Amino acid sequence: MESGQYLVALLIFSFISTAYPHSVIQIRRENHNSVAYNRIYDGRRVRRDDDMYCESWKFSVETNDAGYWSQIPSRCEGYVKEYMTGDRYRSDLEVIADDSLAFAKTVEVAGNGKDAWVFDIDETLLSNLPYYAAHGFGSETFDENSFNDWVDLAEAPVLPASLRLYGELKQLGFKIFLLTGRTESQRNVTGKNLLYGGYSNWERLILRGSSDTGKPAIVYKSEKRKELEDEGYVIHGSSGDQWSDLLGFAEARRSFKLPNPMYYIA
Amino acid sequence: MESGQYLVALLIFSFISTAYPHSVIQIRRENHNSVAYNRIYDGRRVRRDDDMYCESWKFSVETNDAGYWSQIPSRCEGYVKEYMTGDRYRSDLEVIADDSLAFAKTVEVAGNGKDAWVFDIDETLLSNLPYYAAHGFGSETFDENSFNDWVDLAEAPVLPASLRLYGELKQLGFKIFLLTGRTESQRNVTGKNLLYGGYSNWERLILRGSSDTGKPAIVYKSEKRKELEDEGYVIHGSSGDQWSDLLGFAEARRSFKLPNPMYYIA
Repeated sequence: MESGQYLVALLIFSFISTAYPHSVIQIRRENHNSVAYNRIYDGRRVRRDDDMYCESWKFSVETNDAGYWSQIPSRCEGYVKEYMTGDRYRSDLEVIADDSLAFAKTVEVAGNGKDAWVFDIDETLLSNLPYYAAHGFGSETFDENSFNDWVDLAEAPVLPASLRLYGELKQLGFKIFLLTGRTESQRNVTGKNLLYGGYSNWERLILRGSSDTGKPAIVYKSEKRKELEDEGYVIHGSSGDQWSDLLGFAEARRSFKLPNPMYYIA
Repeated sequence: MESGQYLVALLIFSFISTAYPHSVIQIRRENHNSVAYNRIYDGRRVRRDDDMYCESWKFSVETNDAGYWSQIPSRCEGYVKEYMTGDRYRSDLEVIADDSLAFAKTVEVAGNGKDAWVFDIDETLLSNLPYYAAHGFGSETFDENSFNDWVDLAEAPVLPASLRLYGELKQLGFKIFLLTGRTESQRNVTGKNLLYGGYSNWERLILRGSSDTGKPAIVYKSEKRKELEDEGYVIHGSSGDQWSDLLGFAEARRSFKLPNPMYYIA
């Protein structure tokens, strides 16, 4: 056997062997020194296996592999809290803003005012983290009344990475469209909150009107993008924390999925 | 101020304050006890900031936010190695197989033999990890000749979660189509490797023919799915580690993105 073949055989053995429980236990034991094994959430000890599972659960919801989900798995409530309040959420948003901007800079802006970028609002431009922090980070059943009370405060903080991207896109000549599941009755507080946060000079703020009541978000948002296309706009980019912000029809040339392990809107 | 408002104000303050460097430093200091701060890769100390960045980079490539990328960032080479060889890759695959199966069980199989599921092969049914382990886990420039030598060995191990899913889908009555970027010249070794790994009774193994040479994967795979649709097949599900396995036209009703931070095929 040549040394190259020997290496391949060894690697195959080590790969296959981990499929068996005994070997998995050995591997986990080796890893104890290199990764955090126990963490404390709300005084509760969470095993590393929960962290592993929750990382995989997050992968599956962020790629849309999981499809519709109504609730954070109970074992992942602490994980979601840590993710949302820690540096990683902010880090993810910065990298996605960089991706978005890198693409935007490749677009040849036509100069006819028809180059569009569509932003969702909640968990995309503005953060409702203060509200969700007081409501179990998405683990409680959604209460529309208390959420609307929070929206009426017009105090949702901005997501800094999105504010940076928004400003750069305007500089590059894109027209900015804000397409939100919020309703027309929330137009004033929404505009106030956006301005207070530093967003300005959007081309249009599109909210759900009475004719949109009851429509799934993915249909409502696709219809509104289609209307923009029919007006002659080219939607180069679209940014949203929900797949229903991005998929359907009249999709943008490039879509940018922001993280949100707190809730799923179909 | 009522206590509810006070809480909201406090949370907004704590949220906004983390946007400033000084506060970020404080937060990181607090976290030192709860998360792994230093890890050793190949004798090199990697700062926790690299881990944070690489997690965000992985999010952006797995959601396709990053779009086309040709190279793993050099600071993430150790991260990718650890991910691919550790438990997390396998854990991600198990959760995705569970998602896929949960969806498959909701499908009313027509019983006319036209209910289809499409699988990619490399990094979906079979793993080339032994090859990539010997070639920097994707960090080296792809060398077609040495990769084809590896394929000819027909020794790529199976991904256990995919083998489980494959078997369950057959039990449920789905016809399995294997749609790969491998070429017709690799038909025999590919079939041999699949059978050796435990896969059997696929409906059709579709490889790149001479007329597919030079086509982007996303076009080639969409065309082949379209041909299946034209034959009367309903493609309920599609599983692949590349977005080019899943997007384009004639998309499956549900697509399942498997992880692959080693390389990107457009």
